[in-house]
Amino acid sequence: MIAMDEKAVAEIMELHRGGKLALKPTVELSDISQLRKIYTPGVAEVCMHIRENPEAARDYTMIGNTVCIATNGTAVLGLGHIGAVAGMPVMEGKSVILNKMAGVGCMPILIESLDADYIVEALTAIAPTFSAIMLEDISAPLCFEVEEKLQQRVSIPVFHDDQHGTATVVLSALIRALSLTGRSKESVRTVINGAGAAGTAITRLLSAYGFNDIVLCDRKGALYAGRSDLNPAKAAVAAETNPRGVKGVLADVLSGADVFIGVSGPGLVSTDMIRSMNKSSIVFALANPVPEIEPADALGAGAAIASDGKVVNNALVFPGLMRGALDARAAIITTRMKFKAAEVVAAQCVGDEIVPDFMDSSLHQKVARAVASAA
Amino acid sequence: MIAMDEKAVAEIMELHRGGKLALKPTVELSDISQLRKIYTPGVAEVCMHIRENPEAARDYTMIGNTVCIATNGTAVLGLGHIGAVAGMPVMEGKSVILNKMAGVGCMPILIESLDADYIVEALTAIAPTFSAIMLEDISAPLCFEVEEKLQQRVSIPVFHDDQHGTATVVLSALIRALSLTGRSKESVRTVINGAGAAGTAITRLLSAYGFNDIVLCDRKGALYAGRSDLNPAKAAVAAETNPRGVKGVLADVLSGADVFIGVSGPGLVSTDMIRSMNKSSIVFALANPVPEIEPADALGAGAAIASDGKVVNNALVFPGLMRGALDARAAIITTRMKFKAAEVVAAQCVGDEIVPDFMDSSLHQKVARAVASAA
Repeated sequence: MIAMDEKAVAEIMELHRGGKLALKPTVELSDISQLRKIYTPGVAEVCMHIRENPEAARDYTMIGNTVCIATNGTAVLGLGHIGAVAGMPVMEGKSVILNKMAGVGCMPILIESLDADYIVEALTAIAPTFSAIMLEDISAPLCFEVEEKLQQRVSIPVFHDDQHGTATVVLSALIRALSLTGRSKESVRTVINGAGAAGTAITRLLSAYGFNDIVLCDRKGALYAGRSDLNPAKAAVAAETNPRGVKGVLADVLSGADVFIGVSGPGLVSTDMIRSMNKSSIVFALANPVPEIEPADALGAGAAIASDGKVVNNALVFPGLMRGALDARAAIITTRMKFKAAEVVAAQCVGDEIVPDFMDSSLHQKVARAVASAA
Repeated sequence: MIAMDEKAVAEIMELHRGGKLALKPTVELSDISQLRKIYTPGVAEVCMHIRENPEAARDYTMIGNTVCIATNGTAVLGLGHIGAVAGMPVMEGKSVILNKMAGVGCMPILIESLDADYIVEALTAIAPTFSAIMLEDISAPLCFEVEEKLQQRVSIPVFHDDQHGTATVVLSALIRALSLTGRSKESVRTVINGAGAAGTAITRLLSAYGFNDIVLCDRKGALYAGRSDLNPAKAAVAAETNPRGVKGVLADVLSGADVFIGVSGPGLVSTDMIRSMNKSSIVFALANPVPEIEPADALGAGAAIASDGKVVNNALVFPGLMRGALDARAAIITTRMKFKAAEVVAAQCVGDEIVPDFMDSSLHQKVARAVASAA
């Protein structure tokens, strides 16, 4: 955690008292005649209509606008494995963002388990309640298994934001940065540090978008085909990337690169390493809460563009992405929907912005429309 | 369903558009500095506080005021087995009542399964999200198995309203009716028709409260010790009730009884059957939406007091009962808590009322206080 004074901490605690989210009626209950419409006997009309037309549940119940935000608390922000209940304030915060920016209703669901099948079974069982399931702050590689198995079981989108939200906003910022520095996705050399959930998803999305030269690094350095200590997820990425077969630690790999994307840990990139990159490099040091290198230091060492995770944040993407998926009643979130979201976010930038203003609600509306029409 | 004209149906459908319940933020999100308090990095302070003090999750997240309303849609109102999704409007209606009357936040959870263990596993997995679980509209005997197994697995109250809410409000109305007619619980003969979830729970609660002479009837008539066609749940009730060993169909059993409680089906009780009861009888014909006998007909046939399920309704009880359980952070809902709730509801009646005014919020507050202090 970042050091905070006592007064700031007390203010934050007070702000959280009672939680940040509530289940509230959207109808009045002022007299008994109203009760007989929203409850027995009148409600039976609505039940029987849904019984005859199951899809109408999206129109006549909260289901159509309700997303499950599920966590087991194994990878909460920069705090690590603190458990699902301790992670609840983050889930509520995410819900607040989704609601304020895109009108989506979100219910956090806390499951204290490290077992993918147990989590998948529970979420499959309760899935009829929701129109989408977001997986939050579940550590890699468990998150991959949960996402893949769950999406096979349910007919609503399963979206792991730490992977795909982050990947989409990185793609967006990169589209913008390439445009500002006059480069193309086909020609740049990109290095991604951190082979967890986010790093893997970024690598896959950039690769699908047409970035030809990507090297993903874990703690030991570059992933390359044939490296003997890779788990299956990493081996799959290694086989599809690193076309020049680069080996070595991060400092070796960064030399001559155009783009650095860090989703790893604090202070892992030095100014010397930035100087070893190509001229006018692009540096996204996204480790939370302390970046791989402070953007000012990267700029001082010759980077043309440098940002951290406070700027290049998935909150730019996920509200509109979920809104669009709900509006289209999508059954999955496709790569094409992510591409469209990234392009819209990039197109919203003005001047030398790498990302647009998060507080601008028209941004989220535009993302939603683009995503819905791509669905 | 009761016949309704087209206009009334259209109005009810429109009232339900978009659902009756929503997940809403309780904090502002007007600028980025606010975002940094409710989300990263500020939220980490709250997470770590809960990590160190797990019980604080009730104070600093929505958990403390959030109840799960779980159903599999097997016994929805008078509609029967329509499925969980088709039952959603009822779950939302219940949530509206709990919120408006007692400030409780309720999240419906829909599980399309007929398997008790499957339902129990799913609800156990997600239980950390909630401070209580209400089971709704689950058919007997499945509801008994789910309730019993689930309560053994979780450390929050599991409350099947169709059983215990109904039993509590019936006890309340009966306390009041005995007082108005000058009789005692020890001396009256009570006949309960309908050996499903509600009938069984009413029988058990009245018995625990000190009603000595109760005969529970199913479709075939009186339950008595040794009847050969009883399932285990019914056999257990038979062993604890019917001290005079009464046999025969409902018409036989009602002769000479003081109290009739129906949780069975429409029109099962005739005026002749009421005439065969003791003078100034008490008739609660609670079948929904059409009672066993219309109260006016029962009164015409000599009953001193007659009501139906629109009057003697568990909505008088469950808001305050859940509020009290949450306020006390109860781990279970005890029989004593139900007794106290029933006594408070009865004491709130004025004049010749059998139940007090549901819309009076002071009623629900008083129930909550009594339940919390009994917890």
